Amino acid sequence: MKIIQSPQEMQEISAGLRISKNTIGFVPTMGALHQGHLSLIQKCRKENDTAVVSIFVNPIQFGPSEDYQKYPRSLPQDKKLLESVSADFLFVPEANEMFPFGYQTKITVESLSAPLCGKFRPGHFQGVATIVMKLFHIVIPTRAYFGEKDYQQFRIIKQMAADLNLPVEILPCPTAREPDGLAVSSRNQYLSALERKHAPLVYQSLLEGGKLVEKKEKKPEVIRTAVIKKLQESSLISIEYVEIVHPETLVPVREIDETVLLALAVRIGKTRLIDNLMIQPAS
Amino acid sequence: MKIIQSPQEMQEISAGLRISKNTIGFVPTMGALHQGHLSLIQKCRKENDTAVVSIFVNPIQFGPSEDYQKYPRSLPQDKKLLESVSADFLFVPEANEMFPFGYQTKITVESLSAPLCGKFRPGHFQGVATIVMKLFHIVIPTRAYFGEKDYQQFRIIKQMAADLNLPVEILPCPTAREPDGLAVSSRNQYLSALERKHAPLVYQSLLEGGKLVEKKEKKPEVIRTAVIKKLQESSLISIEYVEIVHPETLVPVREIDETVLLALAVRIGKTRLIDNLMIQPAS
Repeated sequence: MKIIQSPQEMQEISAGLRISKNTIGFVPTMGALHQGHLSLIQKCRKENDTAVVSIFVNPIQFGPSEDYQKYPRSLPQDKKLLESVSADFLFVPEANEMFPFGYQTKITVESLSAPLCGKFRPGHFQGVATIVMKLFHIVIPTRAYFGEKDYQQFRIIKQMAADLNLPVEILPCPTAREPDGLAVSSRNQYLSALERKHAPLVYQSLLEGGKLVEKKEKKPEVIRTAVIKKLQESSLISIEYVEIVHPETLVPVREIDETVLLALAVRIGKTRLIDNLMIQPAS
Repeated sequence: MKIIQSPQEMQEISAGLRISKNTIGFVPTMGALHQGHLSLIQKCRKENDTAVVSIFVNPIQFGPSEDYQKYPRSLPQDKKLLESVSADFLFVPEANEMFPFGYQTKITVESLSAPLCGKFRPGHFQGVATIVMKLFHIVIPTRAYFGEKDYQQFRIIKQMAADLNLPVEILPCPTAREPDGLAVSSRNQYLSALERKHAPLVYQSLLEGGKLVEKKEKKPEVIRTAVIKKLQESSLISIEYVEIVHPETLVPVREIDETVLLALAVRIGKTRLIDNLMIQPAS
């Protein structure tokens, strides 16, 4: 695996590969790699001639009171994991190379950034869209892979690429889960032992909502109430949102008559966790 | 000259050319082509293997009370002019192909969009940056050419390309002028015969400012006052702004000790005209 720090060098390598008609698969990450990332990279590895992974803890997607400083960084271990899944290139730029003095360009994907996490993390998705477009210009991927745990992020990136006529295929990958159902996330390591014990309630609450839909419940409010009730079994969990939305527009649905996304964000202690479930109503 | 309407077809052609290592020069326009455009296209023609021109009256760069509807459209004549300067491709997309239902992605170049015309045309430069990035993704130019009459636009596009790591060279071309000095512009055709007679005062006022700097005047306020006084010789002219700014940051300068940009916008009747002059202080 080749490790590249310079955006210009990465771009020259990628341009060369594309001219030789190599397909480039790309997995952008913030490092602290886990099974979720690895399953993305394995898919990327399988479907493309060249597999590029980036590790960059993107300052502009964190709010001022968020965890940019303490976000887990583990480059030596990340490198070993990337070798184990046969990534070809690791792109690890410096923050001051990506956002030099005078930097001022931002990309906004308007409607899709407003609901769900967008309500609670102002500027977050603008930061995500902007860094991903920069990385797309540097890595020049044929295909890029995003985890469904961050479903809103996936939708926003897909919309951005289509809106801006960027010819890159944006592919979602299923959320990796611990044996007890907790969605794998770099932020899970913030949890205390006790908090970790309560955390599986998050996924259990989604399944609870899913079961109701299977039983032909059509009212979003009934589902939301059941999910919230399940989450309230733990006094350590505080709810940020529980929403049932259209998977394309992310607008809350009035009635469940086609596939919907049940999405939530909670805090367990100081740790913010998100998860979601795509639910098909019984036919 | 080949005429292409479909963004996808244009993109496929361009990608093929770039893979064959052709350089692509690009001149984005809103049509109503004039000598200013033609000089851009001639430079583009000379410096690249393939010369692509786009004509698209971009709805999202016009304010609600601006002249989108009545902006001059003259495709048959434009085509002849483009043949005369040997353009290879004319890209003329439809508005609903460029901005389909659900379109929602915007690009903002923050500081550079705030002063000068940005103060008077809210959203204008966001609309410009967004359409130009879309066109860059479709045409995949090696080099793109912009007129210095729209100096702020040129700076914003250059900044956007650098900030977003897009490997396209952004090149400025000198403002084309009528024999009496009036900057050539598609909007000049809005002027009545009388207004047209008064219009050369715009450039004359810039030259007046330039002369003072040559005489070692260092105070921007003195220059501004002289320019305004000159413009006030016509009762048909109302001033939007007259500013003396740093050519990179577009921030007003406190003292003229290096090259500055003297920029202005006026209305003559209902027609809004802009012009500018780069001025070097006497050494």
